[in-house]
Amino acid sequence: MPGPQSSPGKAGQIMRYGFPGLTDLKSREGYVVSYDRRNRNPHWVFEHLTSAHVRGDSDRQQCDFKEDETIHPYFRATNWDFKRSGYDRGHLAAAANHRHSQTAMGDTFYLSNISPQVGEGFNRDAWNRLEMYVRGLTKQFNNVYICTGPLYLPRKEVDGKMYVKYEVIGRNHVAVPTHFFKVIACETNKGELILESYVMPNAKIDNNLPLKNFLVPVESIERASGLLLFDRIPRNAFKAINGRQP
Amino acid sequence: MPGPQSSPGKAGQIMRYGFPGLTDLKSREGYVVSYDRRNRNPHWVFEHLTSAHVRGDSDRQQCDFKEDETIHPYFRATNWDFKRSGYDRGHLAAAANHRHSQTAMGDTFYLSNISPQVGEGFNRDAWNRLEMYVRGLTKQFNNVYICTGPLYLPRKEVDGKMYVKYEVIGRNHVAVPTHFFKVIACETNKGELILESYVMPNAKIDNNLPLKNFLVPVESIERASGLLLFDRIPRNAFKAINGRQP
Ligand SMILES: [Mg+2]
Ligand SMILES: [Mg+2]
Repeated sequence: MPGPQSSPGKAGQIMRYGFPGLTDLKSREGYVVSYDRRNRNPHWVFEHLTSAHVRGDSDRQQCDFKEDETIHPYFRATNWDFKRSGYDRGHLAAAANHRHSQTAMGDTFYLSNISPQVGEGFNRDAWNRLEMYVRGLTKQFNNVYICTGPLYLPRKEVDGKMYVKYEVIGRNHVAVPTHFFKVIACETNKGELILESYVMPNAKIDNNLPLKNFLVPVESIERASGLLLFDRIPRNAFKAINGRQP
Repeated sequence: MPGPQSSPGKAGQIMRYGFPGLTDLKSREGYVVSYDRRNRNPHWVFEHLTSAHVRGDSDRQQCDFKEDETIHPYFRATNWDFKRSGYDRGHLAAAANHRHSQTAMGDTFYLSNISPQVGEGFNRDAWNRLEMYVRGLTKQFNNVYICTGPLYLPRKEVDGKMYVKYEVIGRNHVAVPTHFFKVIACETNKGELILESYVMPNAKIDNNLPLKNFLVPVESIERASGLLLFDRIPRNAFKAINGRQP
């Protein structure tokens, strides 16, 4: 029963008047970001750090948070969206990771690298401690690769069902992630690799909690985020994952 | 202050150990789908219909809902996820749009073309009426292009803030969209184009409500979905949008 368009491979015809969207990918000096146009947040941000990246005299006082004009206005977060929201403009690629270059540091201030984060107790505290820890890894390891992103995790409610719930702020409905993840692959000069994967709630966190309390299986981040992380490296090729032999 | 990796264009180095994800695109006989790995739902499904597509003796009794094995198991919806969830497995590309070919109809039963939909009053009623209306358009128009997708719309809560909230079902946390959209571009034999854009809540809908009550500006769908729809056609090139001259 052949129809006029019944053969496979008609994608060109079906899509004739435009593609609704593909994940927005942006390559900056110090990081690569995939932008989530629906949530007006990064999907993920990837960095490669060495001890030379995190050293330098770049000055964050010279940086301003700025709209990413490569993003269509419908999907672009603005500084106005954050005003009086109660949330910090939290970097996913941290500014201080890119002290070696004023341009690279400035690039981290694009709002496409920013998520709304709880300020006190999170962005300025526990999450910042995790970022400092990552920079410290560049002293021990030749190469440090980091993937950072937001999560929107479900919770069981009193009706026994699971729900995802998150606030959206500003006129552009910028999503406030419930959690953030950081997955870190570190390479020694012998090419040995270790992996660590962290999830923290976007909430005030007790500053006495050690970072290792936030280690989670990387698979749980992959399932929740819809992303495959460091999938070019077989898991059993890592010398350690979250401190243990895989 | 040059660092060893400070020049732009280092994406290949930064991304050395794998790309976390790009929007999954699948081209089937009758439709193209972009899959949302985080929500285990389609992002959007595109169809091109003519009167010849919707005619035929293909039999949906011969079709079974099936996992899409091209999707990584972490992100794949399964029939089990829908069991006892209370939701129908709702087609985004409707099965009956592809009566001309048993293969094309069968392809609409991949769970990557399916979202959890309220059954009575929605999937089996109002949404079905919208689908029948779309098939009817192929009698009037030479070519009908349809983009269908889920929405996760925010609502204001009693605290005055806006929240997105949706259920997730099954072991794989398949998201239950709050709404669905359908944007339809119809082409006459003179090449004239009209556009209609609908949003319906994923809820029991009064069957007496006419379809035109669900017309919304296409821009509102674009903003909420993060998608640009029919963007290869300038809006003022349409003879009518939602029944009015643009
Ligand atoms: Mg910060
Ligand atoms: Mg249906």
